Amino acid sequence: MTEKAIQDFYADDIAICYGCGRHNSHGLHIKSYWDGREAVCHFKPQAHHTAFPGVVYGGLIASVIDCHSLATAHAAAYQAEGRELGTEPEMTFVTGTLKVTYLHATPIDAELSLRAAIKELHEKKIVITCSVFADGKQTAQGEVTAIRAPRDMRLLSKA
Amino acid sequence: MTEKAIQDFYADDIAICYGCGRHNSHGLHIKSYWDGREAVCHFKPQAHHTAFPGVVYGGLIASVIDCHSLATAHAAAYQAEGRELGTEPEMTFVTGTLKVTYLHATPIDAELSLRAAIKELHEKKIVITCSVFADGKQTAQGEVTAIRAPRDMRLLSKA
Repeated sequence: MTEKAIQDFYADDIAICYGCGRHNSHGLHIKSYWDGREAVCHFKPQAHHTAFPGVVYGGLIASVIDCHSLATAHAAAYQAEGRELGTEPEMTFVTGTLKVTYLHATPIDAELSLRAAIKELHEKKIVITCSVFADGKQTAQGEVTAIRAPRDMRLLSKA
Repeated sequence: MTEKAIQDFYADDIAICYGCGRHNSHGLHIKSYWDGREAVCHFKPQAHHTAFPGVVYGGLIASVIDCHSLATAHAAAYQAEGRELGTEPEMTFVTGTLKVTYLHATPIDAELSLRAAIKELHEKKIVITCSVFADGKQTAQGEVTAIRAPRDMRLLSKA
């Protein structure tokens, strides 16, 4: 298991994601850890992240799946090239598709555990599956397609 | 077009969703308006809702699609029964599946416009499609399955 989170290797200028950027002071600070085969994430929702009384809102679950899955893609892509995280040239990914199936209500007072693994790994596209658990019970299942992106992310906003 | 937002008809005790609950003081306060055929939503991301510089993070887009699509299902379900919004017995829905395809980067300085319509309407399940536009260009496409839920949402957290 990596000691540092995968997100801690993202370059400073792009580490501003609301979901997982260490430089976003308003954000969720989602952290993912890679063991060479899968990535794990623990996340505690805040009291205001409700859908209905006692239940986490779906958008938060989608957000945690998204950032955790992209971190998993990041770690797997470096591993596939035999490179250490944080080495140059940096690889970057964006979300192509995000699918979440909500299996059960997710209790808001539980810490969430997410486990993500690689389903397909291609040079430009990685497919990740991600399971969400609360109190030991799976409450959601995600599948994310990560797309390799240009290093200069500013190009994206003009695409 | 409804003058009040669809979410303004949700009962007080469940109007606490982080995405669209009028009683969630930390939330996004997403509002959807129904014209009898489709629902529209305008939403302005905040500066900290970034993915990368200048770009909205995917989890926010997923959240807005989720709440707007469920509101659309709510309005369509009342219409299908020939009932006015806000009349008893209240119908409630939860998200079964959420799928988002990110077509282009969504600029963070634009107001988002969402248009959602009904693809399938059954008694217990409604499928909604939802398109997201920024500066007149479509940047994301969503599809959501809404599931009819028991009125006492507290039952969900014990399911």
